[in-house]
Parts: sequence; structure tokens; C-alpha cells
Amino acid sequence: MDKVNLAEKLAGFSEHWSPRIVGELNGQHVKLVKLQGEFVWHHHADEDELFLVLAGHIDIHLRDRVVALDPGEFFVVPKGIEHKPIADAEAHVLLLEPAGTLNTGNVREARTVDDPERI
Amino acid sequence: MDKVNLAEKLAGFSEHWSPRIVGELNGQHVKLVKLQGEFVWHHHADEDELFLVLAGHIDIHLRDRVVALDPGEFFVVPKGIEHKPIADAEAHVLLLEPAGTLNTGNVREARTVDDPERI
Repeated sequence: MDKVNLAEKLAGFSEHWSPRIVGELNGQHVKLVKLQGEFVWHHHADEDELFLVLAGHIDIHLRDRVVALDPGEFFVVPKGIEHKPIADAEAHVLLLEPAGTLNTGNVREARTVDDPERI
Repeated sequence: MDKVNLAEKLAGFSEHWSPRIVGELNGQHVKLVKLQGEFVWHHHADEDELFLVLAGHIDIHLRDRVVALDPGEFFVVPKGIEHKPIADAEAHVLLLEPAGTLNTGNVREARTVDDPERI
């Protein structure tokens, strides 16, 4: 039970698309992730997922529109909604979602992380 | 279902100790609050509460220590733990806690907000 400095945690890893767990409350995990490039279309059947951009820019593609996020902006992808994040350049994102949420949702691929590291 | 710009939301109110609801996911509320001065000692019997500082500085007093938070730092007050936030100058904070969490927890006083505004 100590405070978390987001910049210090972000300095501790460099891999893209590999979320780290940095906090937990009420059954939810707070995660940090570095994004660069294009992710896979997926959805989370039972979990809403919040993306808060800390640095850089991301586009969350939905099937009917694109949500463009700059630092200080967040978006909640509701459960069941297909989405695909894209970051043309490296972006840093805080995620909030239920503990156990898989980064690739209903899809398994090379970037699937079954057991995110706690840092 | 639209994105949320934290700075725009913060520009929309000025009252201290009066949280606004700006997002919801998985039964949790994302709130913004402006703090200045000293709050009341309280606890939340069943709710963990996350404080992420966006601007300014706050000290979260616990019964056995003080957690000092600058922008980009967060702390989770576990359920049942007495705490008292203090901000010597105005600070802007993002809160995450279960929907229905009362700002003054087990205490009722002048700053209790029973039904936070959604903005």
C-alpha cells in the first residue's frame, strides 16, 4: 500500500502492447501500457475498458467510428464492443478494467498477455 | 458514449470538495474534484478509493502516516481505512470508486454530496 508515480512506472519497461499492473481497487486493475502501431480487432465480453492517454496520441477504431484521444482524454469502450487501438507513434496509456481482463479479449495472437507483470 | 477531456470538464465547475461524475465503467464512477483546505476524517466501509492528482499537491492523512501526492501520482485508500485529504492550495484530483460512494463516507457534514452531478 504505497503511492504510485506513473512516470516512474512507465520508465521501468519499454515493450509495446504489454500492459503492466500498477494498482488494484474494487476488483479492478489499473494498468500502464505503451502502444505503437496497430493492434488487433477484439472485444471483451463482460468488461468495460477505460483508456486514458498520458502521452502521445491514439485512435480507438470502433466499427462505426474512430475515437481520437490526446493526453488528458479518456474513453470507455463498453463491454461487447469491438475495438482496435492504433498509435502512429509511441503513446502511453493508463487502462482501467476488471482484474483478469485479457488484452486481446476474445482473440489469441502473438501479443496476448495471459498474466501481466505487476510493477 | 463519447470521449472525456479532463481539462474541459474541470473548467466547468469551481466548487471545492464537490465531486462531479465524468465516467462510469464496471460499476465504478470516474469523478473529478477540486480540493482546497482540509477535509473531514472519514472512511468508506466497503469501497476502495483511488486518488490521482492532476494538478497541485495533496496530502492524504492516514492515522499512521501522510501520503504526499503530486501530479501524475495516485494512491488507493483501502476500504475501512480512515483518511483526511488536505490541500494547502487548490488541487485537481481524479477519483475512482464504486458508484454510490459518498464523499464523506461514514460522516455527514456540510460538504456531504448525496447525489453528485454528472457533467
